[in-house]
Amino acid sequence: MEILEKTGKALQAVRDKKPLVHHITNYVTVNDCANITLSIGASPVMADDVTEVAEMVSFASALVLNIGTLQTRTIESMLAAGKAAKAKGIPIIFDPVGVGATKLRTKTAERIICDLAPNVIRGNMSEIKVLLGVEAGIRGVDSIADEQDAVEVVQRLAERLRCVVAVTGKTDVVAGGGQIYTIDNGHPIMAHVTGTGCMATSLVGSFCGTAKDDVSGTVAGILVMGLAGEYAFSSLQGEESVGTFHTRLFDEVYNMTAEKILKGGKVTQLK
Amino acid sequence: MEILEKTGKALQAVRDKKPLVHHITNYVTVNDCANITLSIGASPVMADDVTEVAEMVSFASALVLNIGTLQTRTIESMLAAGKAAKAKGIPIIFDPVGVGATKLRTKTAERIICDLAPNVIRGNMSEIKVLLGVEAGIRGVDSIADEQDAVEVVQRLAERLRCVVAVTGKTDVVAGGGQIYTIDNGHPIMAHVTGTGCMATSLVGSFCGTAKDDVSGTVAGILVMGLAGEYAFSSLQGEESVGTFHTRLFDEVYNMTAEKILKGGKVTQLK
Amino acid sequence: MEILEKTGKALQAVRDKKPLVHHITNYVTVNDCANITLSIGASPVMADDVTEVAEMVSFASALVLNIGTLQTRTIESMLAAGKAAKAKGIPIIFDPVGVGATKLRTKTAERIICDLAPNVIRGNMSEIKVLLGVEAGIRGVDSIADEQDAVEVVQRLAERLRCVVAVTGKTDVVAGGGQIYTIDNGHPIMAHVTGTGCMATSLVGSFCGTAKDDVSGTVAGILVMGLAGEYAFSSLQGEESVGTFHTRLFDEVYNMTAEKILKGGKVTQLK
Repeated sequence: MEILEKTGKALQAVRDKKPLVHHITNYVTVNDCANITLSIGASPVMADDVTEVAEMVSFASALVLNIGTLQTRTIESMLAAGKAAKAKGIPIIFDPVGVGATKLRTKTAERIICDLAPNVIRGNMSEIKVLLGVEAGIRGVDSIADEQDAVEVVQRLAERLRCVVAVTGKTDVVAGGGQIYTIDNGHPIMAHVTGTGCMATSLVGSFCGTAKDDVSGTVAGILVMGLAGEYAFSSLQGEESVGTFHTRLFDEVYNMTAEKILKGGKVTQLK
Repeated sequence: MEILEKTGKALQAVRDKKPLVHHITNYVTVNDCANITLSIGASPVMADDVTEVAEMVSFASALVLNIGTLQTRTIESMLAAGKAAKAKGIPIIFDPVGVGATKLRTKTAERIICDLAPNVIRGNMSEIKVLLGVEAGIRGVDSIADEQDAVEVVQRLAERLRCVVAVTGKTDVVAGGGQIYTIDNGHPIMAHVTGTGCMATSLVGSFCGTAKDDVSGTVAGILVMGLAGEYAFSSLQGEESVGTFHTRLFDEVYNMTAEKILKGGKVTQLK
Repeated sequence: MEILEKTGKALQAVRDKKPLVHHITNYVTVNDCANITLSIGASPVMADDVTEVAEMVSFASALVLNIGTLQTRTIESMLAAGKAAKAKGIPIIFDPVGVGATKLRTKTAERIICDLAPNVIRGNMSEIKVLLGVEAGIRGVDSIADEQDAVEVVQRLAERLRCVVAVTGKTDVVAGGGQIYTIDNGHPIMAHVTGTGCMATSLVGSFCGTAKDDVSGTVAGILVMGLAGEYAFSSLQGEESVGTFHTRLFDEVYNMTAEKILKGGKVTQLK
């Protein structure tokens, strides 16, 4: 219950402080990332030219790096922004979209992790497993048995990289700093809208931009996204489905309150 | 009637097989392309860096190339992805947005057609006429008389390029493999939302990703888009217009059923 | 009252002539810019490759330059398109997003202003103040006292650059050609959706694409955006908030009429 109260207070902190969240992200879901950041009460800025990112991130409270449409050009921008963020103690949230699918993505993810040591990594189970394999020097990921449960995978990566790791899926798992949380909010329809993962990462960035504690910031971002998904789904009427649901996600993040979090949040602390 | 039943079954095949549709597309409508692909039940991936596209397309069931915001950088990516797709027998769907408007677009369309021999080309009448002119070595397109009807233009290009050609407009025409279909679904309001053409192309990619038969895959994609447009329009109430219509398009593609296709599909086989 | 009637007639002119508005803009709000342009009745084209922009803009009735996600690559495209537009007397509308935040943006804004002499500049107060400082050779902008009111700032920049300058905020101000207008339409919720400023700029481009008079074109674009925001807000029901509002903006721009402008427009001519 403590974490739910903490999330409610964190929500108020975001709205009071309006942290600037610098994104270097993909061009598919970038509009959604900007709007979800505004909806929670934070302020987005998207800038990816290597000649300006270090300057831009210096005004920011968090840096989100997302490799969804990775380009050779923006890899250097991500590293430059990340180094500047690191130097100023600005938290880095990394979304390794599609890591494992191509060498470019896998190598870039490795560079980001090695050079920048992100504070938080959020991905789906397949991506997090790849990172665990990559980190361990394993080529394929088949060696990680399917039955190995999400909690263990997330916990192992968090311990190895000494950061917060979050996996989103049917049950979300957040591990870091010796703590482990599972979150059972969300709705299956979210998988039918592109960018719900990216948006969760932007919310994590928004929360981590005001909190010193990256674990509770990560739980807050993922919990709010899932809960907003539930509210958005339950608002659908008649023939409304994925398109209307997509629109309502922003409504519900904007409408989120500490009371809704307390009432609807399904978080379990395992450790 | 046969084609409507085939489309209904093709819809089920897309939902069962969830084909991965690799897009190299413009940054204006890319989010809509991803979401319409998800709405029909397929899975989108957008990747355009030349160092990863050949690898990425190797996992895909179809490749969509769209030159809406063509960049020098992505031309090579399109060709590299296309060659890899070709080598693996993955169908290529080409959307020649704005061809004829600039030399860059016209030359790039020529290269894509010559080097990759796309399985399907979908455009508006102006674009298809330019391609017919270009292919015939004609500089201007005025030589193609306006009264020449859509069916003849589409048929001629399909025969010359030995591929499937589709034109969307008031009446859509699909020609290829000696067959010609006209489709009378859709609604004029679709022209007031950017990307309805691009989205039709993404649906064609989704269907061609599961069907061996590109003609029926193309008819299916264009028919579903038009029919979804009709349903989306008829759902509008009060002051709702283009914005709400845009949102409802995804709802209606997601809600599409074989029954709706049988009931509402207006397809005529001319040959 | 005269300006409201003029705006109503300008709206009809846009719908009659469907001016092509060439945008070189950011990838965050580009879809919204295209859709708002279609909603008002104009026609958008987005093209940013340096090898095609001069050709593309030659078909256009207005050129919108927006530096929201400025890239080294597109600076030359903006300048090339701008020079071609200038040579043909096509109005240039400049949106200096984030100017002052980084050297890249400030220098690029200076180049665009010096080399292209845009017909209209639209920004928020912070951006317009930076441009006034930059133009005056001042490094910081603190020298411009906060109490200095919006009207004076806008008027000074308009006089100095001999163009139309518009600032949007609680009260919008448009100055140019010795005239000054304030506009009191809009709704605070617009600040919670990304791109409402960019969309206002696209509407200004749409109006300036049919009007010879850039001042009234600018007033028209900003007035219609604000009024659509009011209508969109008043259409919200129950739990609908920012997401639905975003969607309804397009509905309301599409539904705009001369009657609504006459009835709801709050424009004051100061000079």
